[in-house]
Amino acid sequence: MEKKLPVYLSKKNGDLWLTEDEHESLNISYRIKNIIFEENSPFQHVMVLDSYTFGRMLVLDGIVQTTSIDGHIYNEMISHVSLCIHPDPKRVLIIGGGDCGVAKEICKYDSVDQIDMVDIDKLVVEACKTHLPKVSGGLSDPRVRFIFEDGVKFAQNKEDTYDVIIVDSSDPIGPARVLFEKSFYQSLYKALKGDGLMVCQSQSPIFHSEVMKQTFERISEIFEKVKMYTAVVPTYPGGLWSFTIGSKRYMNFNPAKLSQKDTYYINEQIIESCFSLPQFILEQIKI
Amino acid sequence: MEKKLPVYLSKKNGDLWLTEDEHESLNISYRIKNIIFEENSPFQHVMVLDSYTFGRMLVLDGIVQTTSIDGHIYNEMISHVSLCIHPDPKRVLIIGGGDCGVAKEICKYDSVDQIDMVDIDKLVVEACKTHLPKVSGGLSDPRVRFIFEDGVKFAQNKEDTYDVIIVDSSDPIGPARVLFEKSFYQSLYKALKGDGLMVCQSQSPIFHSEVMKQTFERISEIFEKVKMYTAVVPTYPGGLWSFTIGSKRYMNFNPAKLSQKDTYYINEQIIESCFSLPQFILEQIKI
Repeated sequence: MEKKLPVYLSKKNGDLWLTEDEHESLNISYRIKNIIFEENSPFQHVMVLDSYTFGRMLVLDGIVQTTSIDGHIYNEMISHVSLCIHPDPKRVLIIGGGDCGVAKEICKYDSVDQIDMVDIDKLVVEACKTHLPKVSGGLSDPRVRFIFEDGVKFAQNKEDTYDVIIVDSSDPIGPARVLFEKSFYQSLYKALKGDGLMVCQSQSPIFHSEVMKQTFERISEIFEKVKMYTAVVPTYPGGLWSFTIGSKRYMNFNPAKLSQKDTYYINEQIIESCFSLPQFILEQIKI
Repeated sequence: MEKKLPVYLSKKNGDLWLTEDEHESLNISYRIKNIIFEENSPFQHVMVLDSYTFGRMLVLDGIVQTTSIDGHIYNEMISHVSLCIHPDPKRVLIIGGGDCGVAKEICKYDSVDQIDMVDIDKLVVEACKTHLPKVSGGLSDPRVRFIFEDGVKFAQNKEDTYDVIIVDSSDPIGPARVLFEKSFYQSLYKALKGDGLMVCQSQSPIFHSEVMKQTFERISEIFEKVKMYTAVVPTYPGGLWSFTIGSKRYMNFNPAKLSQKDTYYINEQIIESCFSLPQFILEQIKI
């Protein structure tokens, strides 16, 4: 007897398809070669699928999170910018980031001697380490300490500990909503050292401009310095994506720190130009 | 009796949907509020649909060409960069651009006194002028001369005529394939004045990197100067899009020419940063 298909997949004319239904009025369907991994964790349904267009993809509760063809763009852009701003980052905290791609990028910095990666779902981390090597790089650097618990609670109990905190969250619906609240950014401020800085993804300027604006405002109210930058993330709706940095002291970047690093998307030119914002974003965040 | 639905649309649970099937392994479906316009021209099936996610969209043979929510990004980026490079553009040729968005942007330059817009399909131009005002701006500037014929043949018969030529083509399949051939770029070189320049869209760096690379190489072989830049076009696959400029003399831009212009996406910062290319593009085009 044939194994039952996961509820998120369907067969059409003999082909397997994943259809995302997260947007009420926009459906995206991916033709799938193979189901590489599928299991329920205590938190969500976890799949790694091999797709025709994007290669292997991490899919949580039926929604594509990252893919082999473009995962590196998001991961490089959320990681290297802040690491090139802090002059000597040693302790880095990653909240979320279960696909291991952010940790992989941070490991490229010799100055860093401890990376705490807090993700609630161990199954996601294990599935990506094993089945999504183009994103996770198989991550086995001994400087990475995996902590499988609630990132918000973990950060609340830290004080004056980290040089850089990277918030690699999913969208602000369901459990990730709290990662966009002001009280969360306040706990990050406390968890950072006196000259630390944080960065988070702040959603699509086109489809979630209210969230983007609110994130920028909330971080501005807490941190001494704030800046927004953008990147193109092809598999996210709208393509254009925003990131917000809150910093206690540093905001100048040293793009030379990137040289000799093996990257696919970011380079010295990109880090210099990513802070150039389109007119409609400038008007929204009024800087 | 109910009117028969256009073949590209279908009803699901009482809602109207457009499903693009141009990619074998990636289907995108848009929920549609209303069919604003629908007619067959001698060249293609033309629709203007009002969608929930992207507002009004121009749809040719079932494929979305431009939308109210993001059409301006593409049109501003293909128009203003070259107009800010040429120090005194007077005569501009647009090949394609039936949605009128490029012509609308060029009209923002007082120095320009003639805009020849050559598109084979009069019905597209009329539909967009009437039913897609957010993209076309209703275009009624007397400097615009509409010419409804084959753009390739039109350009072949011109010599030493234009300061700037903008090739706003669709993808290099079917009739638009010739707009990516070397002989076409040679005829543009001839049609330009001694200090003229041309710009074309050169496809997605992620999904059509071969076309992008080939376009850059072909233009490099003909023009004295060549440069590539990118922009985010949310409704195009991959989001990231490339443009290539071929110039006989000028390549420095004067971003101050943008000041006081009413734009939604481009500004002085964006024009300065759009030439910063991601690492994987630099490696492909070897500059």
